[in-house]
Amino acid sequence: MKLLRYGPAGAEKPGMLDEAGKLRDLSAHVPDFTGAMLNDASLAKLRALDPESLPLVEGAPRLGPCVGNIGKFMCIGLNYSDHAEESGMAIPKHPNLFFKANSAIVGPNDDVVMPRGSTHTDWELELGVVIGKAAKYVSKAEALDYVAGYCICNDVSERHFQNNLTGQWTKGKSCDTYGPTGPWLVTRDEVPDLQNLSMSLDVNGERRQAGNTSTMIFTVAEIIEHLSHLFTLHPGDVISTGTPPGVGMGMKPEPVYLKKGDVMELRIEGLGEQRQRVGEDA
Amino acid sequence: MKLLRYGPAGAEKPGMLDEAGKLRDLSAHVPDFTGAMLNDASLAKLRALDPESLPLVEGAPRLGPCVGNIGKFMCIGLNYSDHAEESGMAIPKHPNLFFKANSAIVGPNDDVVMPRGSTHTDWELELGVVIGKAAKYVSKAEALDYVAGYCICNDVSERHFQNNLTGQWTKGKSCDTYGPTGPWLVTRDEVPDLQNLSMSLDVNGERRQAGNTSTMIFTVAEIIEHLSHLFTLHPGDVISTGTPPGVGMGMKPEPVYLKKGDVMELRIEGLGEQRQRVGEDA
Repeated sequence: MKLLRYGPAGAEKPGMLDEAGKLRDLSAHVPDFTGAMLNDASLAKLRALDPESLPLVEGAPRLGPCVGNIGKFMCIGLNYSDHAEESGMAIPKHPNLFFKANSAIVGPNDDVVMPRGSTHTDWELELGVVIGKAAKYVSKAEALDYVAGYCICNDVSERHFQNNLTGQWTKGKSCDTYGPTGPWLVTRDEVPDLQNLSMSLDVNGERRQAGNTSTMIFTVAEIIEHLSHLFTLHPGDVISTGTPPGVGMGMKPEPVYLKKGDVMELRIEGLGEQRQRVGEDA
Repeated sequence: MKLLRYGPAGAEKPGMLDEAGKLRDLSAHVPDFTGAMLNDASLAKLRALDPESLPLVEGAPRLGPCVGNIGKFMCIGLNYSDHAEESGMAIPKHPNLFFKANSAIVGPNDDVVMPRGSTHTDWELELGVVIGKAAKYVSKAEALDYVAGYCICNDVSERHFQNNLTGQWTKGKSCDTYGPTGPWLVTRDEVPDLQNLSMSLDVNGERRQAGNTSTMIFTVAEIIEHLSHLFTLHPGDVISTGTPPGVGMGMKPEPVYLKKGDVMELRIEGLGEQRQRVGEDA
């Protein structure tokens, strides 16, 4: 299933995309796609519905983040071998974890608004993993059983805040609107080839990132195993699993950063597309 | 007011402590102390109540975290000049931010349970700041107007996870139960001398940390100003503002870490007391 949330920010309704790509309303069957609604039993009930019986949603409403009330927004740094090579960085021994503020999360096509003082805002296309049931001390063999599904995340990053303002990466990762998430939560049964998904990001129509989940240093299952030994992964938590080559910070002959009016387009095989316009705070 | 949440984990009710130190139930007046209930208008309504008219709570129920559904759990590292001196670390130029998982939050007297593989669990007594209304681009002159109140936080830290597992400090800060918060949310009107509060932490009855908020490198107002220029601080967010001298990692002649059965007792002037027993996961 391709689950989604549509409507004004903070008042999204649950919906799904049918086989024909039409938006169907699920309000009569589920209050919202928050953690409590992402377990296998809840998803099975939705899967049993006939999409044709669900109300069609008129027009083209805004899409919200595909999960509501996300608890932990975890990110893995430097998780693609070709990106590590490009950066001249050593391959990490363990998944390199940092947190992004959950208040940074917005819909897949909402504007990314640079805060005052931002001079080095960059893009990071990533595969997002949505947890469906509580995971603690799980092995990589069973790890994917704890996943509800997958989505696209843009781990938008202010490199000056991240690297020059003292402290941990979090400062550059947590600006309001710097976490577009969606468009859909694609349930795990529809993503059989998880570690072989092609992905791309364009800025103003020019290809900047191109990659494939096959070059991840730590697979999704390995990341879940590792994190679940540190703390409990709760339903509705999201893990953004690192970015492939081609971020602005690494461009030659010199870095390129986003400016007002730029447009980012992100795609991951089977997970749809995001499109954000860049704005800035007055 | 001294606001609190009492009852079983996940089913806490709101209450307050009256002048005589008795627990009074507030369920009839507020659903819970989450972000939406912490603005000045909501607090003024509670302040207008006659505590004597509120139902007395029998016995000595468990206390939960003094705020429910905490969004961002932000922590400031190395924020006491005497702790920086003790550590031989340079004074940071800006508040040193990292995030703790909100899933680490527990009540003030709940057990701190070391996860499998934990060998270096340490204590960190801190002043917690609870945001009452949304703060973006605020100056330090007005910063405290955005605060609902203050509480004690224990920023329990697994130093091996924090320092040796690749990545950001977050790994050692986010274990389940590593964020005792409470006992009370003391509203800001009752903390006039915010930057002159004495504080202490004992382990098994021995004094380990002793400090005063007067030696903070960045005051609470300066921290709020800085963070609010990075992202929005939302009602119900908590900032833990750094620890004074005396953590286990810095003990001479060699570091001392927590072990099963140890008892931590934390106090901050006017904010009450926490007491946690240390356990470990099988």
